[in-house]
Amino acid sequence: MAASVTAALLVIGDEILSGRTKDKNIGYIAEYLTGIGIDLMEVRVVPDIEAEIVAAVNTLRERYTYLFTTGGIGPTHDDITADSIGRAFGVAVDHDPRAVAMLKERYGEGELTDARLRMARVPKGSDLIENPISKAPGFRIGNVITMAGVPSIMQAMLDLVAPTLQTGVRMTVENVDAGSLGEGIYGDGLAAIAAAHPGVSIGSYPSFTATGFRNQIVVRSKDPAAASAAARDVEALVARLTADRVPL
Amino acid sequence: MAASVTAALLVIGDEILSGRTKDKNIGYIAEYLTGIGIDLMEVRVVPDIEAEIVAAVNTLRERYTYLFTTGGIGPTHDDITADSIGRAFGVAVDHDPRAVAMLKERYGEGELTDARLRMARVPKGSDLIENPISKAPGFRIGNVITMAGVPSIMQAMLDLVAPTLQTGVRMTVENVDAGSLGEGIYGDGLAAIAAAHPGVSIGSYPSFTATGFRNQIVVRSKDPAAASAAARDVEALVARLTADRVPL
Repeated sequence: MAASVTAALLVIGDEILSGRTKDKNIGYIAEYLTGIGIDLMEVRVVPDIEAEIVAAVNTLRERYTYLFTTGGIGPTHDDITADSIGRAFGVAVDHDPRAVAMLKERYGEGELTDARLRMARVPKGSDLIENPISKAPGFRIGNVITMAGVPSIMQAMLDLVAPTLQTGVRMTVENVDAGSLGEGIYGDGLAAIAAAHPGVSIGSYPSFTATGFRNQIVVRSKDPAAASAAARDVEALVARLTADRVPL
Repeated sequence: MAASVTAALLVIGDEILSGRTKDKNIGYIAEYLTGIGIDLMEVRVVPDIEAEIVAAVNTLRERYTYLFTTGGIGPTHDDITADSIGRAFGVAVDHDPRAVAMLKERYGEGELTDARLRMARVPKGSDLIENPISKAPGFRIGNVITMAGVPSIMQAMLDLVAPTLQTGVRMTVENVDAGSLGEGIYGDGLAAIAAAHPGVSIGSYPSFTATGFRNQIVVRSKDPAAASAAARDVEALVARLTADRVPL
Protein backbone atom coordinates (compact mmCIF):
# COMPACT_ATOMS: atom_id res chain seq x y z
CA MET A 1 0.00 0.00 0.00
CA ALA A 2 1.39 3.36 -1.02
CA ALA A 3 1.82 5.97 1.70
CA SER A 4 0.07 8.54 -0.43
CA VAL A 5 -2.16 8.19 -3.46
CA THR A 6 -3.33 11.49 -4.88
CA ALA A 7 -6.02 12.67 -7.25
CA ALA A 8 -7.42 15.70 -8.99
CA LEU A 9 -10.95 16.24 -10.23
CA LEU A 10 -11.77 18.11 -13.42
CA VAL A 11 -15.39 19.24 -13.73
CA ILE A 12 -16.21 20.02 -17.35
CA GLY A 13 -19.14 22.18 -18.33
CA ASP A 14 -20.32 25.70 -19.13
CA GLU A 15 -23.43 25.04 -17.08
CA ILE A 16 -21.46 24.89 -13.83
CA LEU A 17 -19.59 28.13 -14.60
CA SER A 18 -22.77 29.97 -15.55
CA GLY A 19 -24.44 28.83 -12.34
CA ARG A 20 -27.28 27.17 -14.24
CA THR A 21 -26.37 23.81 -12.77
CA LYS A 22 -25.13 23.58 -9.19
CA ASP A 23 -22.39 20.97 -9.03
CA LYS A 24 -23.17 18.04 -6.77
CA ASN A 25 -20.17 15.91 -7.67
CA ILE A 26 -17.24 17.72 -6.06
CA GLY A 27 -18.35 17.13 -2.48
CA TYR A 28 -19.40 13.55 -3.20
CA ILE A 29 -16.15 12.60 -4.89
CA ALA A 30 -14.07 14.39 -2.24
CA GLU A 31 -15.72 12.44 0.55
CA TYR A 32 -15.61 9.16 -1.39
CA LEU A 33 -11.93 9.35 -2.25
CA THR A 34 -10.98 10.39 1.28
CA GLY A 35 -12.89 7.37 2.54
CA ILE A 36 -10.91 4.92 0.40
CA GLY A 37 -7.51 6.45 1.07
CA ILE A 38 -7.01 8.66 -1.98
CA ASP A 39 -6.10 12.28 -1.28
CA LEU A 40 -7.98 14.74 -3.46
CA MET A 41 -5.45 17.54 -3.94
CA GLU A 42 -7.07 19.83 -6.47
CA VAL A 43 -10.33 20.50 -8.29
CA ARG A 44 -10.78 22.55 -11.43
CA VAL A 45 -13.93 23.56 -13.27
CA VAL A 46 -13.44 24.44 -16.93
CA PRO A 47 -15.80 25.37 -19.77
CA ASP A 48 -16.69 23.32 -22.86
CA ILE A 49 -13.65 24.60 -24.74
CA GLU A 50 -11.31 21.94 -26.06
CA ALA A 51 -8.06 23.84 -25.49
CA GLU A 52 -9.03 24.48 -21.85
CA ILE A 53 -9.89 20.85 -21.23
CA VAL A 54 -6.73 19.56 -22.91
CA ALA A 55 -4.50 21.91 -20.92
CA ALA A 56 -6.12 21.00 -17.62
CA VAL A 57 -6.04 17.26 -18.36
CA ASN A 58 -2.35 17.32 -19.24
CA THR A 59 -1.38 19.40 -16.22
CA LEU A 60 -3.39 17.37 -13.73
CA ARG A 61 -2.70 13.86 -15.02
CA GLU A 62 1.02 14.46 -14.78
CA ARG A 63 0.83 15.85 -11.32
CA TYR A 64 -1.38 13.35 -9.47
CA THR A 65 -1.82 9.58 -9.27
CA TYR A 66 -5.30 9.83 -10.78
CA LEU A 67 -7.35 12.41 -12.59
CA PHE A 68 -11.14 12.05 -12.48
CA THR A 69 -13.32 14.00 -14.86
CA THR A 70 -17.07 14.58 -14.80
CA GLY A 71 -19.31 15.87 -17.56
CA GLY A 72 -19.34 16.21 -21.31
CA ILE A 73 -19.82 12.59 -22.39
CA GLY A 74 -23.41 12.78 -23.60
CA PRO A 75 -24.73 12.67 -27.17
CA THR A 76 -24.88 16.36 -28.07
CA HIS A 77 -22.42 18.63 -29.88
CA ASP A 78 -21.36 20.32 -26.64
CA ASP A 79 -20.15 16.97 -25.25
CA ILE A 80 -16.50 17.22 -26.19
CA THR A 81 -14.78 15.44 -23.33
CA ALA A 82 -13.83 12.28 -25.26
CA ASP A 83 -12.33 14.30 -28.11
CA SER A 84 -10.48 16.55 -25.70
CA ILE A 85 -8.99 13.66 -23.78
CA GLY A 86 -7.99 11.96 -27.02
CA ARG A 87 -6.26 15.18 -28.01
CA ALA A 88 -4.55 15.40 -24.62
CA PHE A 89 -3.17 11.89 -25.04
CA GLY A 90 -2.48 12.31 -28.76
CA VAL A 91 -4.63 9.30 -29.70
CA ALA A 92 -7.53 8.89 -32.10
CA VAL A 93 -11.12 8.93 -30.86
CA ASP A 94 -13.48 6.56 -32.57
CA HIS A 95 -16.52 4.37 -32.07
CA ASP A 96 -15.59 1.49 -29.78
CA PRO A 97 -17.36 -1.77 -30.67
CA ARG A 98 -17.74 -2.69 -26.99
CA ALA A 99 -19.38 0.65 -26.31
CA VAL A 100 -21.65 0.31 -29.34
CA ALA A 101 -22.73 -3.10 -27.99
CA MET A 102 -23.59 -1.49 -24.65
CA LEU A 103 -25.72 1.15 -26.36
CA LYS A 104 -27.52 -1.58 -28.30
CA GLU A 105 -28.69 -3.04 -24.98
CA ARG A 106 -30.71 0.13 -24.58
CA TYR A 107 -31.51 1.35 -28.06
CA GLY A 108 -33.11 -0.60 -30.89
CA GLU A 109 -31.58 -0.46 -34.38
CA GLY A 110 -33.71 2.48 -35.53
CA GLU A 111 -33.11 4.39 -32.31
CA LEU A 112 -29.32 4.35 -32.49
CA THR A 113 -28.97 7.82 -34.00
CA ASP A 114 -25.63 9.35 -34.94
CA ALA A 115 -25.96 11.49 -31.84
CA ARG A 116 -26.37 8.44 -29.61
CA LEU A 117 -23.48 6.73 -31.36
CA ARG A 118 -21.32 9.67 -30.31
CA MET A 119 -21.52 8.21 -26.81
CA ALA A 120 -19.59 5.16 -28.05
CA ARG A 121 -16.65 7.29 -29.15
CA VAL A 122 -13.70 6.90 -26.79
CA PRO A 123 -9.97 7.57 -27.02
CA LYS A 124 -8.10 4.61 -28.50
CA GLY A 125 -6.66 2.38 -25.79
CA SER A 126 -9.35 3.21 -23.21
CA ASP A 127 -10.98 0.72 -20.89
CA LEU A 128 -14.70 1.24 -20.55
CA ILE A 129 -16.57 1.96 -17.32
CA GLU A 130 -20.04 0.47 -17.38
CA ASN A 131 -23.07 2.63 -16.90
CA PRO A 132 -25.79 0.55 -15.22
CA ILE A 133 -28.30 3.37 -15.51
CA SER A 134 -28.33 4.60 -19.10
CA LYS A 135 -25.70 2.32 -20.70
CA ALA A 136 -23.44 4.96 -22.34
CA PRO A 137 -20.10 4.14 -20.74
CA GLY A 138 -17.38 6.18 -19.11
CA PHE A 139 -13.80 5.32 -19.90
CA ARG A 140 -10.34 5.16 -18.48
CA ILE A 141 -7.13 5.86 -20.33
CA GLY A 142 -3.84 5.86 -18.45
CA ASN A 143 -4.54 7.43 -15.08
CA VAL A 144 -7.50 9.48 -16.34
CA ILE A 145 -10.97 8.29 -15.36
CA THR A 146 -13.82 9.92 -17.26
CA MET A 147 -17.29 9.75 -15.80
CA ALA A 148 -20.73 11.18 -16.55
CA GLY A 149 -21.83 14.49 -15.05
CA VAL A 150 -25.28 13.31 -13.99
CA PRO A 151 -24.70 12.55 -10.29
CA SER A 152 -26.50 9.20 -10.11
CA ILE A 153 -24.56 7.88 -13.10
CA MET A 154 -21.25 9.30 -11.88
CA GLN A 155 -21.80 7.62 -8.52
CA ALA A 156 -22.48 4.25 -10.14
CA MET A 157 -19.35 4.60 -12.28
CA LEU A 158 -17.24 5.55 -9.27
CA ASP A 159 -18.47 2.44 -7.43
CA LEU A 160 -17.36 0.32 -10.37
CA VAL A 161 -13.97 1.91 -10.82
CA ALA A 162 -13.02 2.30 -7.13
CA PRO A 163 -12.05 -1.37 -6.53
CA THR A 164 -9.52 -1.14 -9.39
CA LEU A 165 -7.68 1.85 -7.92
CA GLN A 166 -4.50 1.93 -5.93
CA THR A 167 -5.24 3.34 -2.49
CA GLY A 168 -3.08 4.74 0.28
CA VAL A 169 -3.19 4.90 4.03
CA ARG A 170 -6.52 6.28 5.08
CA MET A 171 -6.62 9.58 6.90
CA THR A 172 -7.56 9.31 10.57
CA VAL A 173 -9.91 12.14 11.41
CA GLU A 174 -10.86 13.25 14.91
CA ASN A 175 -13.44 15.96 15.48
CA VAL A 176 -13.41 18.16 18.55
CA ASP A 177 -16.53 20.23 19.05
CA ALA A 178 -15.62 23.69 20.31
CA GLY A 179 -19.27 24.71 20.60
CA SER A 180 -19.70 28.45 20.77
CA LEU A 181 -16.12 29.01 21.95
CA GLY A 182 -14.71 31.55 19.51
CA GLU A 183 -11.89 30.72 17.09
CA GLY A 184 -10.26 33.90 18.29
CA ILE A 185 -10.23 32.51 21.84
CA TYR A 186 -8.55 29.23 21.01
CA GLY A 187 -6.61 30.28 17.91
CA ASP A 188 -3.33 30.99 19.68
CA GLY A 189 -3.44 27.75 21.67
CA LEU A 190 -4.40 25.77 18.59
CA ALA A 191 -1.47 27.18 16.63
CA ALA A 192 0.87 26.02 19.41
CA ILE A 193 -0.65 22.52 19.33
CA ALA A 194 -0.37 22.41 15.54
CA ALA A 195 3.29 23.40 15.75
CA ALA A 196 3.93 20.72 18.39
CA HIS A 197 2.40 17.93 16.29
CA PRO A 198 4.16 17.65 12.92
CA GLY A 199 2.46 15.31 10.48
CA VAL A 200 -0.92 16.32 11.86
CA SER A 201 -3.16 18.80 10.09
CA ILE A 202 -5.50 20.76 12.35
CA GLY A 203 -8.34 22.80 10.90
CA SER A 204 -10.88 25.03 12.54
CA TYR A 205 -14.26 25.38 10.89
CA PRO A 206 -16.92 27.85 11.89
CA SER A 207 -20.46 27.35 10.83
CA PHE A 208 -22.67 30.35 11.07
CA THR A 209 -26.22 29.66 12.09
CA ALA A 210 -29.19 31.74 13.13
CA THR A 211 -28.05 31.43 16.73
CA GLY A 212 -24.45 32.43 16.04
CA PHE A 213 -21.18 30.70 15.27
CA ARG A 214 -20.46 27.15 16.16
CA ASN A 215 -16.92 25.91 15.75
CA GLN A 216 -15.51 22.51 15.10
CA ILE A 217 -11.85 21.59 15.18
CA VAL A 218 -10.76 18.78 12.90
CA VAL A 219 -7.55 16.87 13.50
CA ARG A 220 -6.25 14.76 10.62
CA SER A 221 -3.25 12.52 10.17
CA LYS A 222 -2.25 9.35 8.35
CA ASP A 223 -0.77 8.21 11.68
CA PRO A 224 -3.67 7.28 13.99
CA ALA A 225 -1.56 7.63 17.15
CA ALA A 226 -0.40 11.09 16.13
CA ALA A 227 -3.98 12.16 15.32
CA SER A 228 -5.15 10.89 18.69
CA ALA A 229 -2.38 12.61 20.65
CA ALA A 230 -3.09 15.94 18.96
CA ALA A 231 -6.85 15.56 19.41
CA ARG A 232 -6.40 14.96 23.16
CA ASP A 233 -4.37 18.19 23.39
CA VAL A 234 -7.08 20.05 21.49
CA GLU A 235 -9.77 18.67 23.79
CA ALA A 236 -7.77 19.77 26.83
CA LEU A 237 -7.38 23.25 25.33
CA VAL A 238 -11.09 23.56 24.62
CA ALA A 239 -12.00 22.30 28.09
CA ARG A 240 -9.62 24.73 29.78
CA LEU A 241 -10.81 27.74 27.76
CA THR A 242 -14.46 26.83 28.23
CA ALA A 243 -13.95 26.74 32.00
CA ASP A 244 -11.96 30.03 31.96
CA ARG A 245 -14.14 31.85 29.59
CA VAL A 246 -15.49 35.26 30.21
CA PRO A 247 -19.08 35.46 28.99
CA LEU A 248 -19.05 37.61 25.85
CA MET B 1 -18.97 48.78 -21.16
CA ALA B 2 -16.48 46.08 -22.06
CA ALA B 3 -17.67 43.34 -24.37
CA SER B 4 -16.31 40.71 -22.07
CA VAL B 5 -15.28 40.85 -18.43
CA THR B 6 -13.95 37.57 -17.10
CA ALA B 7 -13.28 36.05 -13.72
CA ALA B 8 -11.90 33.01 -11.97
CA LEU B 9 -12.75 31.73 -8.52
CA LEU B 10 -10.22 30.14 -6.20
CA VAL B 11 -11.70 28.16 -3.32
CA ILE B 12 -9.12 27.67 -0.59
CA GLY B 13 -9.42 24.95 2.01
CA ASP B 14 -8.50 21.39 2.95
CA GLU B 15 -12.04 20.90 4.23
CA ILE B 16 -13.51 21.14 0.73
CA LEU B 17 -10.99 18.65 -0.71
CA SER B 18 -11.54 16.17 2.12
CA GLY B 19 -15.29 16.38 1.64
CA ARG B 20 -15.85 17.45 5.24
CA THR B 21 -17.38 20.70 4.07
CA LYS B 22 -19.53 20.78 0.97
CA ASP B 23 -18.84 23.98 -0.93
CA LYS B 24 -21.83 26.26 -1.30
CA ASN B 25 -20.01 29.21 -2.80
CA ILE B 26 -19.15 28.06 -6.33
CA GLY B 27 -22.74 27.85 -7.55
CA TYR B 28 -23.73 31.07 -5.81
CA ILE B 29 -20.83 33.09 -7.20
CA ALA B 30 -21.26 31.58 -10.68
CA GLU B 31 -24.89 32.62 -10.82
CA TYR B 32 -24.21 36.03 -9.28
CA LEU B 33 -21.40 36.94 -11.67
CA THR B 34 -23.36 35.73 -14.69
CA GLY B 35 -26.22 37.93 -13.57
CA ILE B 36 -24.10 41.09 -13.47
CA GLY B 37 -22.30 40.45 -16.76
CA ILE B 38 -19.04 38.89 -15.59
CA ASP B 39 -18.10 35.58 -17.22
CA LEU B 40 -16.79 33.04 -14.76
CA MET B 41 -14.24 31.12 -16.83
CA GLU B 42 -12.55 28.82 -14.34
CA VAL B 43 -12.78 27.57 -10.77
CA ARG B 44 -10.03 25.92 -8.78
CA VAL B 45 -10.09 24.36 -5.34
CA VAL B 46 -6.71 24.13 -3.62
CA PRO B 47 -5.56 22.99 -0.16
CA ASP B 48 -4.20 25.13 2.69
CA ILE B 49 -0.68 24.99 1.28
CA GLU B 50 0.96 28.34 0.60
CA ALA B 51 2.84 27.31 -2.53
CA GLU B 52 -0.37 25.95 -4.08
CA ILE B 53 -2.33 29.10 -3.29
CA VAL B 54 0.43 31.39 -4.57
CA ALA B 55 0.75 29.48 -7.85
CA ALA B 56 -2.99 29.47 -8.46
CA VAL B 57 -3.37 33.16 -7.57
CA ASN B 58 -0.60 34.21 -9.92
CA THR B 59 -1.87 32.09 -12.80
CA LEU B 60 -5.47 33.15 -12.46
CA ARG B 61 -5.03 36.85 -11.74
CA GLU B 62 -2.96 37.25 -14.88
CA ARG B 63 -5.42 35.41 -17.01
CA TYR B 64 -8.77 36.95 -16.08
CA THR B 65 -10.17 40.41 -15.35
CA TYR B 66 -10.88 39.43 -11.74
CA LEU B 67 -9.92 36.66 -9.38
CA PHE B 68 -12.22 35.98 -6.45
CA THR B 69 -11.06 33.85 -3.55
CA THR B 70 -13.06 32.28 -0.73
CA GLY B 71 -11.81 30.81 2.52
CA GLY B 72 -8.80 30.99 4.79
CA ILE B 73 -9.19 34.46 6.30
CA GLY B 74 -10.21 33.46 9.82
CA PRO B 75 -8.20 33.70 13.03
CA THR B 76 -6.59 30.27 13.20
CA HIS B 77 -3.17 29.00 12.08
CA ASP B 78 -4.66 27.25 9.04
CA ASP B 79 -5.97 30.57 7.71
CA ILE B 80 -3.12 31.43 5.37
CA THR B 81 -4.87 33.22 2.53
CA ALA B 82 -3.67 36.76 3.39
CA ASP B 83 -0.06 35.62 3.68
CA SER B 84 -0.29 33.63 0.47
CA ILE B 85 -1.75 36.54 -1.49
CA GLY B 86 0.89 38.86 -0.07
CA ARG B 87 3.50 36.39 -1.25
CA ALA B 88 1.87 36.17 -4.68
CA PHE B 89 2.03 39.95 -5.03
CA GLY B 90 5.44 40.23 -3.38
CA VAL B 91 4.16 42.65 -0.72
CA ALA B 92 4.30 42.60 3.07
CA VAL B 93 1.33 41.42 5.12
CA ASP B 94 0.70 43.27 8.34
CA HIS B 95 -1.98 44.48 10.71
CA ASP B 96 -4.02 47.16 8.99
CA PRO B 97 -5.20 49.93 11.36
CA ARG B 98 -8.55 50.20 9.52
CA ALA B 99 -9.10 46.46 9.96
CA VAL B 100 -8.08 46.61 13.62
CA ALA B 101 -10.67 49.36 14.10
CA MET B 102 -13.33 47.14 12.51
CA LEU B 103 -12.47 44.30 14.88
CA LYS B 104 -12.71 46.67 17.83
CA GLU B 105 -16.35 47.29 16.92
CA ARG B 106 -16.94 43.68 17.84
CA TYR B 107 -14.33 42.77 20.40
CA GLY B 108 -13.54 44.57 23.63
CA GLU B 109 -9.94 45.33 24.55
CA GLY B 110 -9.43 42.10 26.51
CA GLU B 111 -11.09 40.01 23.81
CA LEU B 112 -8.83 41.10 20.99
CA THR B 113 -6.53 38.10 21.17
CA ASP B 114 -3.50 37.66 18.91
CA ALA B 115 -5.54 35.12 16.98
CA ARG B 116 -8.33 37.62 16.37
CA LEU B 117 -5.81 40.27 15.41
CA ARG B 118 -4.62 37.89 12.68
CA MET B 119 -7.87 38.75 10.90
CA ALA B 120 -6.64 42.36 10.57
CA ARG B 121 -3.54 41.28 8.64
CA VAL B 122 -3.86 42.11 4.94
CA PRO B 123 -1.39 42.52 2.07
CA LYS B 124 0.03 46.05 1.91
CA GLY B 125 -1.91 48.18 -0.54
CA SER B 126 -5.20 46.34 -0.13
CA ASP B 127 -8.60 47.95 0.07
CA LEU B 128 -10.81 46.41 2.71
CA ILE B 129 -14.19 44.78 2.11
CA GLU B 130 -16.49 45.28 5.05
CA ASN B 131 -18.00 42.34 6.84
CA PRO B 132 -21.38 43.37 8.24
CA ILE B 133 -21.81 40.03 10.00
CA SER B 134 -18.69 39.33 12.02
CA LYS B 135 -16.57 42.45 11.27
CA ALA B 136 -13.32 40.75 10.12
CA PRO B 137 -12.93 42.22 6.63
CA GLY B 138 -12.12 40.77 3.26
CA PHE B 139 -9.73 42.68 1.04
CA ARG B 140 -8.93 43.57 -2.50
CA ILE B 141 -5.48 44.01 -3.98
CA GLY B 142 -5.13 44.65 -7.68
CA ASN B 143 -7.72 42.49 -9.39
CA VAL B 144 -7.86 39.92 -6.60
CA ILE B 145 -10.89 39.98 -4.32
CA THR B 146 -10.56 37.92 -1.16
CA MET B 147 -13.70 36.96 0.70
CA ALA B 148 -14.66 34.76 3.65
CA GLY B 149 -15.56 31.11 3.16
CA VAL B 150 -18.65 31.17 5.38
CA PRO B 151 -21.42 31.56 2.78
CA SER B 152 -23.47 34.25 4.53
CA ILE B 153 -20.39 36.43 5.02
CA MET B 154 -19.11 35.79 1.49
CA GLN B 155 -22.50 36.81 0.10
CA ALA B 156 -22.52 40.05 2.06
CA MET B 157 -19.00 40.85 0.87
CA LEU B 158 -19.91 40.10 -2.74
CA ASP B 159 -22.87 42.50 -2.48
CA LEU B 160 -20.52 45.22 -1.26
CA VAL B 161 -17.84 44.66 -3.88
CA ALA B 162 -20.08 44.06 -6.91
CA PRO B 163 -21.01 47.73 -7.53
CA THR B 164 -17.28 48.56 -7.81
CA LEU B 165 -16.60 46.01 -10.55
CA GLN B 166 -16.33 46.52 -14.26
CA THR B 167 -19.07 44.50 -15.95
CA GLY B 168 -19.64 43.38 -19.52
CA VAL B 169 -22.58 42.67 -21.73
CA ARG B 170 -24.91 40.32 -19.94
CA MET B 171 -25.50 36.91 -21.42
CA THR B 172 -28.97 36.44 -22.87
CA VAL B 173 -30.20 33.00 -21.93
CA GLU B 174 -33.18 31.20 -23.45
CA ASN B 175 -34.33 27.86 -22.15
CA VAL B 176 -36.14 25.36 -24.32
CA ASP B 177 -37.71 22.48 -22.47
CA ALA B 178 -37.27 19.24 -24.42
CA GLY B 179 -39.29 17.26 -21.89
CA SER B 180 -38.61 13.56 -22.14
CA LEU B 181 -37.41 13.81 -25.73
CA GLY B 182 -34.03 12.09 -25.70
CA GLU B 183 -30.79 13.96 -26.32
CA GLY B 184 -29.95 11.21 -28.76
CA ILE B 185 -33.09 12.08 -30.76
CA TYR B 186 -32.37 15.77 -31.11
CA GLY B 187 -28.56 15.69 -30.90
CA ASP B 188 -27.92 15.67 -34.64
CA GLY B 189 -30.41 18.46 -35.34
CA LEU B 190 -29.08 20.49 -32.43
CA ALA B 191 -25.52 20.20 -33.74
CA ALA B 192 -26.69 21.58 -37.09
CA ILE B 193 -28.42 24.52 -35.38
CA ALA B 194 -25.32 25.21 -33.28
CA ALA B 195 -23.17 25.22 -36.42
CA ALA B 196 -25.60 27.59 -38.15
CA HIS B 197 -25.55 30.13 -35.29
CA PRO B 198 -22.02 31.31 -34.61
CA GLY B 199 -21.67 33.41 -31.45
CA VAL B 200 -24.39 31.36 -29.81
CA SER B 201 -23.60 28.64 -27.30
CA ILE B 202 -26.15 25.83 -27.11
CA GLY B 203 -26.05 23.31 -24.30
CA SER B 204 -28.18 20.28 -23.60
CA TYR B 205 -28.68 19.26 -19.99
CA PRO B 206 -30.32 16.06 -18.86
CA SER B 207 -31.58 15.71 -15.37
CA PHE B 208 -32.21 12.22 -14.22
CA THR B 209 -35.19 11.80 -11.96
CA ALA B 210 -37.09 8.87 -10.54
CA THR B 211 -39.37 8.97 -13.59
CA GLY B 212 -36.55 9.08 -16.14
CA PHE B 213 -34.57 11.73 -17.98
CA ARG B 214 -35.82 15.21 -18.60
CA ASN B 215 -33.85 17.39 -20.94
CA GLN B 216 -33.45 21.09 -21.18
CA ILE B 217 -31.72 22.95 -23.98
CA VAL B 218 -30.07 26.23 -23.06
CA VAL B 219 -29.24 28.83 -25.68
CA ARG B 220 -26.83 31.58 -24.65
CA SER B 221 -25.39 34.59 -26.44
CA LYS B 222 -24.22 38.11 -25.69
CA ASP B 223 -26.32 39.15 -28.71
CA PRO B 224 -30.01 38.95 -27.72
CA ALA B 225 -31.22 38.76 -31.33
CA ALA B 226 -28.84 35.90 -32.09
CA ALA B 227 -29.93 34.04 -28.95
CA SER B 228 -33.56 34.50 -29.91
CA ALA B 229 -33.07 33.32 -33.50
CA ALA B 230 -31.26 30.18 -32.36
CA ALA B 231 -33.83 29.48 -29.64
CA ARG B 232 -36.68 29.67 -32.20
CA ASP B 233 -34.83 27.11 -34.35
CA VAL B 234 -34.38 24.86 -31.33
CA GLU B 235 -38.06 25.14 -30.43
CA ALA B 236 -39.01 24.21 -33.99
CA LEU B 237 -36.68 21.20 -33.87
CA VAL B 238 -38.13 20.01 -30.56
CA ALA B 239 -41.70 20.51 -31.80
CA ARG B 240 -41.02 18.59 -35.03
CA LEU B 241 -39.29 15.69 -33.26
CA THR B 242 -41.94 15.51 -30.55
CA ALA B 243 -44.64 15.21 -33.24
CA ASP B 244 -42.64 12.61 -35.21
CA ARG B 245 -41.52 10.62 -32.31
CA VAL B 246 -41.84 6.90 -32.11
CA PRO B 247 -42.81 5.94 -28.57
CA LEU B 248 -39.72 4.31 -27.00
